[in-house]
Amino acid sequence: MAVEGREGSLGGSPARGKKSGAKKGGWELEQVAAEGPPPPSPRGSRLALLRKTPEKNAEILSSQYGLHLFLAGLLLMFAWAVHAKGFSQSAVLSYLITLMLLQILWMAWYICRRYAHKRLIQDKDTHAGARWLKCAITLFAAITLIMDSFKIGYFVGYSDCLSVTEGIFPATHAVHTLLQVYFLWSHAKDIIQSFKMLERFGVIHSVFTNLLLWTNGVLTESKHQLNEHKERLITLGFGNITLELDDHEPQCNCTTTVLCSIFSQGIYYLYPFNIEYHIMASTMLYVLWKNIGRKVEHLQQHKITFKFQGKTLGAILGLIVFTTTIAIVVVYLFQIGRSKIKSEIALIMFYLYSIAVLTMMCAAGIVALLIYRLEEKSLDVSKNPARKLDADLLVGAASGSWLLSWGSILAIICADSHPAYTWYNLPFSILVIFEKYIQNLFIIESIHREHEKVNDDIKTIRILTVSNGNTLSPAPSYKEIYNGIDGIQNGESPYMFNGNNILPESSGSDALDEDKSQGNTPVTPSTSDFSLYSKNSSVNNKRNILKNIAAFLFLCNLSLWIPPAFGCRPEYDNGLEEMVFGFEPWITVVNLAMPFSIFYRMHSAASLFEVICKT
Amino acid sequence: MAVEGREGSLGGSPARGKKSGAKKGGWELEQVAAEGPPPPSPRGSRLALLRKTPEKNAEILSSQYGLHLFLAGLLLMFAWAVHAKGFSQSAVLSYLITLMLLQILWMAWYICRRYAHKRLIQDKDTHAGARWLKCAITLFAAITLIMDSFKIGYFVGYSDCLSVTEGIFPATHAVHTLLQVYFLWSHAKDIIQSFKMLERFGVIHSVFTNLLLWTNGVLTESKHQLNEHKERLITLGFGNITLELDDHEPQCNCTTTVLCSIFSQGIYYLYPFNIEYHIMASTMLYVLWKNIGRKVEHLQQHKITFKFQGKTLGAILGLIVFTTTIAIVVVYLFQIGRSKIKSEIALIMFYLYSIAVLTMMCAAGIVALLIYRLEEKSLDVSKNPARKLDADLLVGAASGSWLLSWGSILAIICADSHPAYTWYNLPFSILVIFEKYIQNLFIIESIHREHEKVNDDIKTIRILTVSNGNTLSPAPSYKEIYNGIDGIQNGESPYMFNGNNILPESSGSDALDEDKSQGNTPVTPSTSDFSLYSKNSSVNNKRNILKNIAAFLFLCNLSLWIPPAFGCRPEYDNGLEEMVFGFEPWITVVNLAMPFSIFYRMHSAASLFEVICKT
Repeated sequence: MAVEGREGSLGGSPARGKKSGAKKGGWELEQVAAEGPPPPSPRGSRLALLRKTPEKNAEILSSQYGLHLFLAGLLLMFAWAVHAKGFSQSAVLSYLITLMLLQILWMAWYICRRYAHKRLIQDKDTHAGARWLKCAITLFAAITLIMDSFKIGYFVGYSDCLSVTEGIFPATHAVHTLLQVYFLWSHAKDIIQSFKMLERFGVIHSVFTNLLLWTNGVLTESKHQLNEHKERLITLGFGNITLELDDHEPQCNCTTTVLCSIFSQGIYYLYPFNIEYHIMASTMLYVLWKNIGRKVEHLQQHKITFKFQGKTLGAILGLIVFTTTIAIVVVYLFQIGRSKIKSEIALIMFYLYSIAVLTMMCAAGIVALLIYRLEEKSLDVSKNPARKLDADLLVGAASGSWLLSWGSILAIICADSHPAYTWYNLPFSILVIFEKYIQNLFIIESIHREHEKVNDDIKTIRILTVSNGNTLSPAPSYKEIYNGIDGIQNGESPYMFNGNNILPESSGSDALDEDKSQGNTPVTPSTSDFSLYSKNSSVNNKRNILKNIAAFLFLCNLSLWIPPAFGCRPEYDNGLEEMVFGFEPWITVVNLAMPFSIFYRMHSAASLFEVICKT
Repeated sequence: MAVEGREGSLGGSPARGKKSGAKKGGWELEQVAAEGPPPPSPRGSRLALLRKTPEKNAEILSSQYGLHLFLAGLLLMFAWAVHAKGFSQSAVLSYLITLMLLQILWMAWYICRRYAHKRLIQDKDTHAGARWLKCAITLFAAITLIMDSFKIGYFVGYSDCLSVTEGIFPATHAVHTLLQVYFLWSHAKDIIQSFKMLERFGVIHSVFTNLLLWTNGVLTESKHQLNEHKERLITLGFGNITLELDDHEPQCNCTTTVLCSIFSQGIYYLYPFNIEYHIMASTMLYVLWKNIGRKVEHLQQHKITFKFQGKTLGAILGLIVFTTTIAIVVVYLFQIGRSKIKSEIALIMFYLYSIAVLTMMCAAGIVALLIYRLEEKSLDVSKNPARKLDADLLVGAASGSWLLSWGSILAIICADSHPAYTWYNLPFSILVIFEKYIQNLFIIESIHREHEKVNDDIKTIRILTVSNGNTLSPAPSYKEIYNGIDGIQNGESPYMFNGNNILPESSGSDALDEDKSQGNTPVTPSTSDFSLYSKNSSVNNKRNILKNIAAFLFLCNLSLWIPPAFGCRPEYDNGLEEMVFGFEPWITVVNLAMPFSIFYRMHSAASLFEVICKT
């Protein structure tokens, strides 16, 4: 999910970089001293030694602690998944319950402490925890709460034969969810500066607890999907694969049969939201962790607002894709596994539809990149950890689906026999690769583009023009600044560059009016006025196209999140890869790569939402 | 392996950071223009569009290309490993041969081009490709060449029934190795500034080719180890595990039987060096890739020299550990799998020995960290991508062995029956976790410690002292600077801080002489002279202890690399985890995690070597 923690795109003020560095290298002691008088003799006591730990060490100490939490949890889940002797689901659930309780305690402590120390000046990272991100997480959390209540209901129904942990888990999870959402609403923007050691451990604990809850959700969901797939295979009469169903119904009867079946069916439709909720929460908490001890200078903030203007076409096209996708998924899920011929038709339909959507997305991405190439604007590559995380997550998560696509391509190349429908898989897999390749380029370039900097440079030019007046020939200094800004040496008139049209607040015409009201006589010949106007409208056109493309891609990515999240997985159903790689190996690859592929769609949608707001 | 590309530890000059940022955001065009006159009309042609690609995009384009190379290769190897239909080893080898040939072509082109454009000013990253690193890689490459010749000999012996790719592969690999070592010797320090697009793709291609060759080596080695383990299990009479041997001898007779058996045996003793060679090469190439387009300011360089003085005790203890480890490994490999009782004795011997070594390493690490806590020096946290990579690789690679340790701990907790020798596994696993936790903290703090900065600050103080003389009370300005340097507010005399004793070139007494020769009258009372002397010797003592600890840990890490690299793997042999998790799942976990665990030891040894040189 999108991680917010922008440092602002003002091109990394060098003074800030330095100051922040010095701060990070400082001592915990310093921070404690800021809160009150330092202890009279810090030497000798263990507490003093701990406080003297440099921040870098505190970071490594806590991140290694978090890794251990995660590794131990992963192994427990692995043991459960491979049916290791002596391991049951209750071991995993108990571990998760313990972690959640610890996090609840820590969050309660933190909230109280913040409340008690309200008088202290609290730095806030205004770019972290954007409002729309909080709204999204609240929505997902609400659905998660419904899921928890379903789970509790299911436990009550089967309480005779279910382990007690299966009842405690959803109850704890509900409390955990409520408190965590409150915590994120009120503290996601915090920049923690005092008693950092305990905060670091608390936040990293929360990050990895959420990651483990995500892993647990993914694992449960995968088991369920695999079972459904196996049931379909049994219906279709495949006897050559050793099939054993996992996670059977409980061994006793439900007290209220109707409710129980609604609960057990409903839970699996709610899981995708629960999974997204946890990954979003863990990225938001990670940004909070990264912000600990950071020194943020108060830059002027450009409030990002979302308007519907100017992206109607993209939005309409995107909404068509969205609704069609839902229809296709419903048809697919009804058709697949009914009979051999119905399955094949469902697969062909899915592939053809996906090929159409992906082709459009590729085209949109290429057009956007070409516009960027024509615009010749430099990128803001100042240090910005949250933006870096965004880009890394995009490429990393895309690797999951690329692995699956390469698997399909290799399988098609090497298979002995090719049923007709498998051929559609080839263009589909190739398009998946290309679409993500292009989309990543587009998103990463968009989030790195400078928007505000040019604004300042224009002001500099204006001031220079005013001060130079007509007595001096301003041409050389123009030229110099112009070259300095973008480093382009193509000899265009300095007025022709498109800087002022990219201002988020003031439109190009406002800037012109301002120019005139300042009584500034243009130095360049009158043709440049014309070229400014024409350039202006062309840039506005480009901006509109980019906005529409971003809106279209945003809705397409949201749409493409739905099929894999709700069990429409041709990688299971088409059977070709299973034949070539073998059932077990291929299922393992799919189960490992699929969560990242699903995460990619939600994360790219979030990044594209940001691109829409910024363009 | 250690990655060199230090920016120098002068605390991240803000101007440099800014400038480098601006450069990175620049256009390819700019760089081309620097080489000659720009093309008359760059607009319109595809080449011009390509040249206008911002560097950030070139980076993402090439890294995504590299990822695809890697993923496709991984899947081919996976298909081979799981015996997928239609895949054989020749498919994997052909793919690797193609990649190597492409890299050879690129390297040849690059070397020729550099030779032709010698007149151009070439930036060099003086911190990349340290001499000792090059020497290490040459040694490993030489052993790799021997392995290649063994493989060719083996192929000649069995040429009747082996695929021709098995002959072409080692021949290409030998050429590739020779050219790559030459390339790294002469170009590892290059900072590429022109025609960056092709260079980026070439270098990233080389990085992932080496990573794939590493993966291939690891896979072959794992298969071999697994076969040996299965053979042992058959000898011990375990019939309950479904055993099938992989990678049998070829189906025809060797023309010279004696030679063939020497070759096939010898190859597997040389594999560990080949594996290390490729991972080292890929990290060095990665630094070269990271350096493309970077703007490096020419800082004064502090030549790192290695001296044997002052670390005799640590070196002697380390050498004892080293020789004992070799003896233990030989005994272990002779004893294991002979009979049940001999196996158990070998395991107990191995565990007891490892527990002893790890305890000593933990103790050494804790002492070093305590010394650091007493020294109160701030850390240099300026931006330094290569150092960051070093730290990330340490923690990342350690995770592999932590996963194995957690597996063992969980298995011991959950197992039904506990043969006596399995109990030794518990302290061993816990110690492995703690030792790496502590060692990582020590290494990361050591490579982040500021050495040169304090030097400059002292000069400032001296200048201030001289200029202030006796007429003005210098106390407030001292105090200010002092607080400015370290941010410590514990009220010690400003003379008492230990800065001048950490200089790499000049010892503390030299600095004192200098002070006197400058005719500087000390302003502080005469007691501070005494405290300076005593502090001096105490700091020298501390430095000596740290040096000894680093030398000891360096040799210990080298020693602990040997057992897993040469097939002494109690994780296979003790049988407890296999019983609990099941044979297949546990073997999968071990085969995935072990390469990282082995890499950790070599990488930490390299980092510790750097720590020794810097301390």
